[in-house]
Amino acid sequence: MQDHHGSKDLPGYNPGSPDVAKSPISFDEFRELKATCLFTDEDVAYLRLSYDVLKDQAEDLVTMWRGIIAQHTHLANYGLDRATGEPDKEYGAAVGKRFAQWVLDTARADYDQAWLDYQYEVGLRHHRSKKNKTDHANAAVQIRGRDLIGFAAATVAPMRPYLEKGGHSAETVQRMQDAWWKSMILQVTLWSQPYMNAGDF
Amino acid sequence: MQDHHGSKDLPGYNPGSPDVAKSPISFDEFRELKATCLFTDEDVAYLRLSYDVLKDQAEDLVTMWRGIIAQHTHLANYGLDRATGEPDKEYGAAVGKRFAQWVLDTARADYDQAWLDYQYEVGLRHHRSKKNKTDHANAAVQIRGRDLIGFAAATVAPMRPYLEKGGHSAETVQRMQDAWWKSMILQVTLWSQPYMNAGDF
Repeated sequence: MQDHHGSKDLPGYNPGSPDVAKSPISFDEFRELKATCLFTDEDVAYLRLSYDVLKDQAEDLVTMWRGIIAQHTHLANYGLDRATGEPDKEYGAAVGKRFAQWVLDTARADYDQAWLDYQYEVGLRHHRSKKNKTDHANAAVQIRGRDLIGFAAATVAPMRPYLEKGGHSAETVQRMQDAWWKSMILQVTLWSQPYMNAGDF
Repeated sequence: MQDHHGSKDLPGYNPGSPDVAKSPISFDEFRELKATCLFTDEDVAYLRLSYDVLKDQAEDLVTMWRGIIAQHTHLANYGLDRATGEPDKEYGAAVGKRFAQWVLDTARADYDQAWLDYQYEVGLRHHRSKKNKTDHANAAVQIRGRDLIGFAAATVAPMRPYLEKGGHSAETVQRMQDAWWKSMILQVTLWSQPYMNAGDF
């Protein structure tokens, strides 16, 4: 992820930067976790196939996911400024751009050490330990662990129509979505680390 | 889950029993979590459709999942007796029967208060707080949180050929598997609760 694919001007998006936390688990432990998720080189190939399908749809996907969030008070509340009770639009815009970038990074599937470190950073930014700090925001003190993990389902389940737009066979679309499910579960697992008791992860 | 569908003679399988822990989250909070997972009545219907397809394949599924576990040392080690370093076959047999019962319970999708309480119990039994106690075993002190969540992917991704055996259309098989993905993520989210820092779940 050395060049971040031209996204270095995205505020707060800084994989590979010295400001990013280092993964507490080693790369060997990460390999084990990929095996636990049945995440293989074949999944990498299908994710990369999905890149071409999704690269111009990343913002549409974010709009769709935010529609889901807006429909549920307990999720929509996460985006409110705690002082005013109103949506923090600046924070929302910054997070939205990184969310779209996340679609591309997931699909590129360059899951190297810098990526692994950044997943820990993503977990910290949802957790009370680093929430709001990147954007100097005053929104919810943290995303609850239950919503962090549970929203994995809301992320991947509605992706199918977007994956279908590439004109691939139903079987190939299915395999692309399977790879997304596995990567999503792999990622929320990594993101959950700051939420867990010492020694429990 | 009042009658446990004739499974009351399964050792250590006791939803609804006074010995089972109570869910620390309320049923209203559980409804919110289902929404986070986009888990709807339609998913319940497709899970129940999968019941007829899977009811005679539950043991085959467990055999398949255990084959995956056996192929990975870090997963296979969970089943070894810590004194002898050998697989604890009695423990393995008891867990295997409950694992098959879990397939049926997931597909029946009677996710009521007793089921919610039992999911917390399942989490505790994977966590150091209650691991080994049900079966008086001496296996691993706990399943690591990362493997508890990550194995959700290894559970659902290989189910497709089993779901296809019911002779339903590809679209219906797809919807059944989507419902399994959502339920699986809902469940590992609930199971993760004992692993999380106070206030983080």
